[in-house]
Amino acid sequence: MARVEARILKGFRDYLPEVEGPRQRMLTAVKGVFESFGYGPLQTPALEYSDILLGKYGDEGDKLLYRFMDNGERDIAMRYDLTVPLARVIGMHQDLVMPWRRYQVAPVWRAEKPGKGRFREFMQCDADLVGEPSVRGDAEIMMVGLGVLAALEVPSFVMRVNDRRILDGVLDVVGVGGRDARMSVLRAIDKLPKVGPDEVRSEIKAGVGLSDEAISRLFDLLGRNIGGREDLATLGAELVGSEVGLAGVAGLSELLSILEGAGFGAQVAVDLSIARGLDYYTSTIYETFLVGHESYGSVMSGGRYDTLMDMFSGKAMPAVGVSLGVDRLLSALLDLGLVTARKATADAFFCLFSAEDYPAVAALARELRKADVKVEVALSAGKLGKQFQLATKKGFRWALLQGADERARGEVVLKNLETGTQDVVAVANVAEWGARVRGG
Amino acid sequence: MARVEARILKGFRDYLPEVEGPRQRMLTAVKGVFESFGYGPLQTPALEYSDILLGKYGDEGDKLLYRFMDNGERDIAMRYDLTVPLARVIGMHQDLVMPWRRYQVAPVWRAEKPGKGRFREFMQCDADLVGEPSVRGDAEIMMVGLGVLAALEVPSFVMRVNDRRILDGVLDVVGVGGRDARMSVLRAIDKLPKVGPDEVRSEIKAGVGLSDEAISRLFDLLGRNIGGREDLATLGAELVGSEVGLAGVAGLSELLSILEGAGFGAQVAVDLSIARGLDYYTSTIYETFLVGHESYGSVMSGGRYDTLMDMFSGKAMPAVGVSLGVDRLLSALLDLGLVTARKATADAFFCLFSAEDYPAVAALARELRKADVKVEVALSAGKLGKQFQLATKKGFRWALLQGADERARGEVVLKNLETGTQDVVAVANVAEWGARVRGG
Repeated sequence: MARVEARILKGFRDYLPEVEGPRQRMLTAVKGVFESFGYGPLQTPALEYSDILLGKYGDEGDKLLYRFMDNGERDIAMRYDLTVPLARVIGMHQDLVMPWRRYQVAPVWRAEKPGKGRFREFMQCDADLVGEPSVRGDAEIMMVGLGVLAALEVPSFVMRVNDRRILDGVLDVVGVGGRDARMSVLRAIDKLPKVGPDEVRSEIKAGVGLSDEAISRLFDLLGRNIGGREDLATLGAELVGSEVGLAGVAGLSELLSILEGAGFGAQVAVDLSIARGLDYYTSTIYETFLVGHESYGSVMSGGRYDTLMDMFSGKAMPAVGVSLGVDRLLSALLDLGLVTARKATADAFFCLFSAEDYPAVAALARELRKADVKVEVALSAGKLGKQFQLATKKGFRWALLQGADERARGEVVLKNLETGTQDVVAVANVAEWGARVRGG
Repeated sequence: MARVEARILKGFRDYLPEVEGPRQRMLTAVKGVFESFGYGPLQTPALEYSDILLGKYGDEGDKLLYRFMDNGERDIAMRYDLTVPLARVIGMHQDLVMPWRRYQVAPVWRAEKPGKGRFREFMQCDADLVGEPSVRGDAEIMMVGLGVLAALEVPSFVMRVNDRRILDGVLDVVGVGGRDARMSVLRAIDKLPKVGPDEVRSEIKAGVGLSDEAISRLFDLLGRNIGGREDLATLGAELVGSEVGLAGVAGLSELLSILEGAGFGAQVAVDLSIARGLDYYTSTIYETFLVGHESYGSVMSGGRYDTLMDMFSGKAMPAVGVSLGVDRLLSALLDLGLVTARKATADAFFCLFSAEDYPAVAALARELRKADVKVEVALSAGKLGKQFQLATKKGFRWALLQGADERARGEVVLKNLETGTQDVVAVANVAEWGARVRGG
């Protein structure tokens, strides 16, 4: 066959072990938190009939689908998000016991213009609670998200929460009517942290033709500092006349009361300018920022969407979810030194004095693994200095050695490749020295 | 938008939590073993340029690719296996430190005719050692495979090993020449366990026109019971004249010697009839069967392929690998009761006396999770009997209860839903009763 050049598609990435290792460990921790709340893993196919996906993401989304005809002339497309497949599963399994808690961690594909931080294949990581209408469901899903950040040992973060109905109430009060106009204002507000108030102001003015006075009133209301439920009550007094706005105030107030009662008050703040661009949210919406590192943007977001899950089943089905920005969070954690990229996968590199030693060393390595020490065994004997160099190049901090003499004495040599010091220890005490090797 | 029927493509599957849970746990254990030998995780895109994949899997494979033009008129195709992407990564990263140990667990897509146990999307789970020519590499990768089965607590299995060069030697001796004829005989032999000797015999006769006498000699040689290295030496005496055959005998003998020396002799058996259908193997080949349950077929296989990894780099690059049949192994483990499907993801279901209790119960659930007890919290209060019924239906074995009185006393009620018995325990002793709840 003709030799072709090894290359990768634009907008796609290989994850080599140095990055994929920490990424896997992060995802394992996240899945552990999801499961600790009773959320179970779901996996759906990468390919769906196109009509399952079409029309669910707007005209723009339809264009971004990887869509094609298969060999059997079926019109198919690659997974674009995890929410529509969830709705399909619910449509096909009407016997699921509600409320149903599921999570899914899987790549999705979008034919976007690739750019800085924008890829055509990326991981989504969603947990959703389906079939629970009460605000306790909103509280639970937010506690799941807060649990994830705690498990990842993120030092300082804040979940900024709002209620879509309060935004509707504010729009009622300042006089923006009609669904399109309202969505256009919400999308402009959603850009506030990125582009600043001046640009949002002119976008609203140009888009909806709102008066300067009305825009000022809008900014005043959305900029309110809501320190607690009393401030929400004050806001409510200004939304009198907007039924939806008052329902939003009551809902958010109840949500805060639960989160405070459960001990999460300090990690949550009301922010009336949180709008979220997607138009399917129906009440609670939230985004999560790393305090002091807000420039990473929201690393976790979600909300309640009570009118989406019925798209296949036809049955009304409340739902609330959380979605983790895996790649964004990982790059933040790497930058902040909370996760470290490490070249070596194992804890120690077992050198080889001679090829004849290999079976005995392999047998010892098996015992070490039983004691939870990950060990890579050299497959070629050679000058020890070169083996130490190789181990260092591979990112190991520990080298192990055992020649025939050490073996006869039941000993093994531990060499710290960073300090250059070495110790002779009894193999039998592996619990003690294994912990040292694992520790770094 | 028009409502469409929720349906899934033929040959594709949803994995609901009841099965995906055990599957994830199995894969986590497998990855842990790979990493304990120093193998690091690699992830490659689902999509590649078509010319990266074309011609690598034979004409039949080319037809089975999910291949299409993207919006930018690029000819692209979905991942068909994990080996060609590995070769591409090696071609693009000439600075990798060799030998390089990597594993990849990822779905692949093949437009096969769907059938019993044959799907268009399935998981591959490969570990490969690249850049190591010595037979110690073969021994290592086999020990990785044996380590996986040990970690999964598979009670009785055997890894049947052969050397492709011995098969070549046998073909030399019985007089089958020419690459096509040889491959056709190997493919026929590969079917031996499935179709039996008579059919293999007639396939070889029809395909290659070998005499009855030569076929009998072939079967005699391949059927030899090789109990150890002495039997291999005896076989070698009959292959004199075939250089490749003798190299195979020497190689397999050295491999056995290492595996015996490392303590794995009892788990490995020579089987000269192991042929493996793929024509890229160059020496060691092996398959693994569950003893007493051979009908599941080989659950893990692999071998050495020294002429494949150079397809993009142009550099000669020895390699040896192991590939786990995830779905086959999982269904065997489920059937044998070694893995149990469990509906509930969490350990316990925390009932709710009244909605007002929710914040306090959520706070307590947080403490339980810190003590490693997975707990799902009811979101609706209602008759306790109904909540117990719901918990049972969801597959829980334990229900927890705490009303205002218990809370005041620092107590919680544990109800075993299987036996109906209940205990009152002090919340503070969670280490003790948490272990009980986790245990079942």
